[in-house]
Amino acid sequence: MTTEKITEFWFDFASTYSYPAAMRSEDLAAKCHVRMVWRPFVLGVIFEKQGWYDSPFNIYPAKGNYMWRDLERLCAALAIPFRKPSRFPRNGLTAARIVCANEGAQWIAEFTRKVYTANFAQDRDIAKREVLCGCLQGLVDDPAAVFEAAHGKEAKARLRANTERAMALGIFGAPSFITAGELFWGHDRLETALAWQSAEQD
Amino acid sequence: MTTEKITEFWFDFASTYSYPAAMRSEDLAAKCHVRMVWRPFVLGVIFEKQGWYDSPFNIYPAKGNYMWRDLERLCAALAIPFRKPSRFPRNGLTAARIVCANEGAQWIAEFTRKVYTANFAQDRDIAKREVLCGCLQGLVDDPAAVFEAAHGKEAKARLRANTERAMALGIFGAPSFITAGELFWGHDRLETALAWQSAEQD
Repeated sequence: MTTEKITEFWFDFASTYSYPAAMRSEDLAAKCHVRMVWRPFVLGVIFEKQGWYDSPFNIYPAKGNYMWRDLERLCAALAIPFRKPSRFPRNGLTAARIVCANEGAQWIAEFTRKVYTANFAQDRDIAKREVLCGCLQGLVDDPAAVFEAAHGKEAKARLRANTERAMALGIFGAPSFITAGELFWGHDRLETALAWQSAEQD
Repeated sequence: MTTEKITEFWFDFASTYSYPAAMRSEDLAAKCHVRMVWRPFVLGVIFEKQGWYDSPFNIYPAKGNYMWRDLERLCAALAIPFRKPSRFPRNGLTAARIVCANEGAQWIAEFTRKVYTANFAQDRDIAKREVLCGCLQGLVDDPAAVFEAAHGKEAKARLRANTERAMALGIFGAPSFITAGELFWGHDRLETALAWQSAEQD
């Protein structure tokens, strides 16, 4: 008997290292015969609980300077287009609510990659209606309707629930991955998370 | 004409992820035909400038809990012995001063591995004379003399200078690596740092 293997991908559209992870995760998951489940959450809420009211990359300049150079090198090595956004972090709330409101839809992976590309390769404001509708174009019949629905109570409640669940899981940064109850943090752990086997399967 | 390739390994004996990096770096450097230069510094001084008066792994429990589990998994995957120290962080000042006072000595790499092993595999207090003299045993003729010399002005001044240099280089965590002027942070970047070529060599 084979059980379907699942890895949860916990991400925030503002998160820098989530960008290369989002771009690579679906292909890598397919190779590992893992189904990737997309779980957007609001990292800022978790940061605030730690006393950070901005990205730690902005609060601690040495860390921030390093991160931008590291991300540039990383994307170059992975052949992923990268342009440092003129504003960081960007507001990814509506994009995250679109994912929450359409959980399980086939187009979520492609939409997620499009939003990350808009933020980190095209320097576009992913909070804007025209940018998000552009990302939805070709994926859904009515981009404007999907955009509007993301502002409803249901979508907002789902994103809040995701963020609470992330905290309960011990998540403190993005991207994070959960496979068989094990938490992995950072783009650098994507392959390890996908390859992880639960103790029962060993 | 071949120029010798050098990677600087910036570390603090209290730093958890520096442990697997220290254990693996000499072999990996040899394979890459890189000479590893050991650069101890005091990470606590840099943390204090960021407003942290303890390890961030202690200040932020979710991050700390994750780190210990991640380190355990990492060491298991790399077949490096690991036992969570009963006290963290441990005081590595004298050990660092021993390295500073004996810069360039052949036995530094082995001494460094022994101190990390004492801290992270044997749960021993690396601030203690008997532990450090034990680590020096078999490497130097007179462990007690080397231990005493590390308390001199010269050794202390060198460690302070290293820490100031680390800050000037933009170092904010350990381990960090510098190859051809490029900064790399974290055990996860050890291989990338060793493989890095300066722009001139490309």
